[in-house]
Amino acid sequence: MIYDILQKKRNGAENSREELEELVGGFVRGNVPDYQMAAWLMAVYFRHLSGRERADLTEIMLQTGDIIDLSEIKGVKIDKHSTGGVGDKVTLIVGPMVASQDVVFAKLSGRGLGHTGGTIDKLESIPGLTTELSLERFKSIANEIGIALAGQTGNIVPADKKMYALRDVTATVDEISLIASSIMSKKLAITTDGIVLDVKVGSGAFMKTIGEAEELSEAMIDIGVRHGRKVAVVMSDMSQPLGKTVGNALEVREAVETLKGEGPSDLQELCICLAGKMLELAGTGNSETCLERARSSIESGKALEKFVEMVRSQGGDPEVVSAGKRKLPRASIMKEVLSQEAGYIASIDTEGVGFVAMMLGAGRRNKDDKVDPSAGIEIFKKVGNYVERREVLGVLHTNLEEVVEPAAGKLFSAYRISADKPTVPDMIRKIL
Amino acid sequence: MIYDILQKKRNGAENSREELEELVGGFVRGNVPDYQMAAWLMAVYFRHLSGRERADLTEIMLQTGDIIDLSEIKGVKIDKHSTGGVGDKVTLIVGPMVASQDVVFAKLSGRGLGHTGGTIDKLESIPGLTTELSLERFKSIANEIGIALAGQTGNIVPADKKMYALRDVTATVDEISLIASSIMSKKLAITTDGIVLDVKVGSGAFMKTIGEAEELSEAMIDIGVRHGRKVAVVMSDMSQPLGKTVGNALEVREAVETLKGEGPSDLQELCICLAGKMLELAGTGNSETCLERARSSIESGKALEKFVEMVRSQGGDPEVVSAGKRKLPRASIMKEVLSQEAGYIASIDTEGVGFVAMMLGAGRRNKDDKVDPSAGIEIFKKVGNYVERREVLGVLHTNLEEVVEPAAGKLFSAYRISADKPTVPDMIRKIL
Repeated sequence: MIYDILQKKRNGAENSREELEELVGGFVRGNVPDYQMAAWLMAVYFRHLSGRERADLTEIMLQTGDIIDLSEIKGVKIDKHSTGGVGDKVTLIVGPMVASQDVVFAKLSGRGLGHTGGTIDKLESIPGLTTELSLERFKSIANEIGIALAGQTGNIVPADKKMYALRDVTATVDEISLIASSIMSKKLAITTDGIVLDVKVGSGAFMKTIGEAEELSEAMIDIGVRHGRKVAVVMSDMSQPLGKTVGNALEVREAVETLKGEGPSDLQELCICLAGKMLELAGTGNSETCLERARSSIESGKALEKFVEMVRSQGGDPEVVSAGKRKLPRASIMKEVLSQEAGYIASIDTEGVGFVAMMLGAGRRNKDDKVDPSAGIEIFKKVGNYVERREVLGVLHTNLEEVVEPAAGKLFSAYRISADKPTVPDMIRKIL
Repeated sequence: MIYDILQKKRNGAENSREELEELVGGFVRGNVPDYQMAAWLMAVYFRHLSGRERADLTEIMLQTGDIIDLSEIKGVKIDKHSTGGVGDKVTLIVGPMVASQDVVFAKLSGRGLGHTGGTIDKLESIPGLTTELSLERFKSIANEIGIALAGQTGNIVPADKKMYALRDVTATVDEISLIASSIMSKKLAITTDGIVLDVKVGSGAFMKTIGEAEELSEAMIDIGVRHGRKVAVVMSDMSQPLGKTVGNALEVREAVETLKGEGPSDLQELCICLAGKMLELAGTGNSETCLERARSSIESGKALEKFVEMVRSQGGDPEVVSAGKRKLPRASIMKEVLSQEAGYIASIDTEGVGFVAMMLGAGRRNKDDKVDPSAGIEIFKKVGNYVERREVLGVLHTNLEEVVEPAAGKLFSAYRISADKPTVPDMIRKIL
């Protein structure tokens, strides 16, 4: 009985696999009413799940939908997932990096909501490029050039969609086991050989502290291990936006610069670390040699070449690489935001910056919103930088005239400026 | 926003009165979905409510329905409520006791589910007696003879019905604040001068330990105080059935015997204590003199006289008092249950006994079930008694032949018999 399942969890006992199947399976099939699921979720918020329960929940969730079988793609396939932050264009960079080193990067992404679009939206700001590939076409491109990025099709983990919608309105989103099961069910539903997780930590991330991030990381690794999947975690800083751009076309430009070895140092450091970890997980060497290969994939220009191949094979204009700005969509309005005081950038309200990007048109509030690929922010000053009064903090890009002034005000107020030089947070917080 | 209300409670903060109104009022009006209420209830299970929150919740709940104004009934009116147990016929006894001492007992009861019917069902086993009185008729009888017992009409605390139905399927029934608010909202919706609560403690009660019972009692008193209503609590033993009968007509017979001064000592002790407390709460004297008046109401025969008046004024046959058994409905089957071993009665599984009464037809599993007034159990042996092998433990009364054998087996197995003489629990555990 569902009642007994709730009562057990409420009392701090474990739910058996059969009980979780009855509850979650029943919920997805519409036999278990949402008020019982809501009560269970709140009980889980307080009582948490054991490792075994988490693994069972993940398995039950992923079995409610399609399993995407990538075994027809030859070679070792490593997936990569980020828990999300502001200015995160890492996938566009590490994909070509590892693919240039003979590790297959075949990635399916959802669109999702947020202050900017997802990887898919970013890619689509490249003229001509499509991410709407059939699974057959996706596999064949991956087989041919070792990299393919496509929008998720099919019905992956409907249980997660239904449970997340309920968690979202019942204050039960932020529980580690539920977050871990949600992420891992979607990752495990795609049959890759390993997964590198980029767990963001800091004020702009879902996990505010390193302790929370570690807990989530360990839960996800544990679920992976229990499913026989290799999982590694890099915990990285998200106490300020990543790199120097936020917005779809702007981030593509920055990804290209990074692939050319001209990217901002924080972004480059993270990409080398993640790509190294992916090469290592693929079994192509030890930690040091893999890091070295990741580095040389940029220095040698091979990663950039792979990016060009990828763009071309998905119908995009490869000239974005050479012609840069001119080939990417550009906003009609560009507005400099000046600092109203002098001093060191002590901190940046990262979520505030994300909100500004959303105002400018870069993101999606609702599922059917259209993303403006040209909209976004160039960030000139980051934590630890000194700014003079009336010096430029950043530049807003938008096609919405009415939002320029309020967005400029918001961007300035996202900056905290201080007379004291702050310590700049490490980009890589921890590797598991 | 409802989300914020849930999140606040989840995080252990207090909800303001406005928030509780938005949530509970919205839920009753159908604007707040049951999954949000379910999540809140589970959060309350873990975080509890403050005294102020409890009082506000109670007030908000009772305001969703009718307020039963008894001010037209002259004199001091004291209500009485039991948290429920097996063999609880106390209302039938203490009502006439206090009414015979010039304190008005005007009681409205629901029917409810359970192993036997409620007070209303018990009374209706008296031939001719009706409890379906209009509020006008109810008040006029109470004004005339000082006592009236009727089925609840109108729409008292619909919020409680709706919330209880949800708690019942989400494992959120057993939380002290929610129980206290539920009980008190229904009591406070009827404008009496004071309420004596009989809080049952023990294996056969909802509150298993004296600690839990105290917590609930203090919560209810606190709610009463915050609403300016006088409340007293008697905590009484429910580790075995109360008195020697379970079942509607059987309990009426036992109530009459008790009013004649011939009742079982445990039942008599409790009734005197409760009636004394009611007289005291009515301001008719101190604790000792009130207990003395309660006792003398039985010894003088005045309480019995009042019972006869009550039966007559509600259309019942007053001969049930003198002719006893012959006037009350009798079951076609009476089956002695013999002990299969000798020894002391160490304990009785009270809920097990209640279940047997239900099997025999005395109770109501679903709202529309019909109660068999003649069905029930006579209990010959109670905790501390010695029983010989093949001596009678009790007698089953039923009209359902097919249940006799299994019920007999269940009744025997409800008894734990031991070589050692156990200590008999005190009837009155604590008075607040």
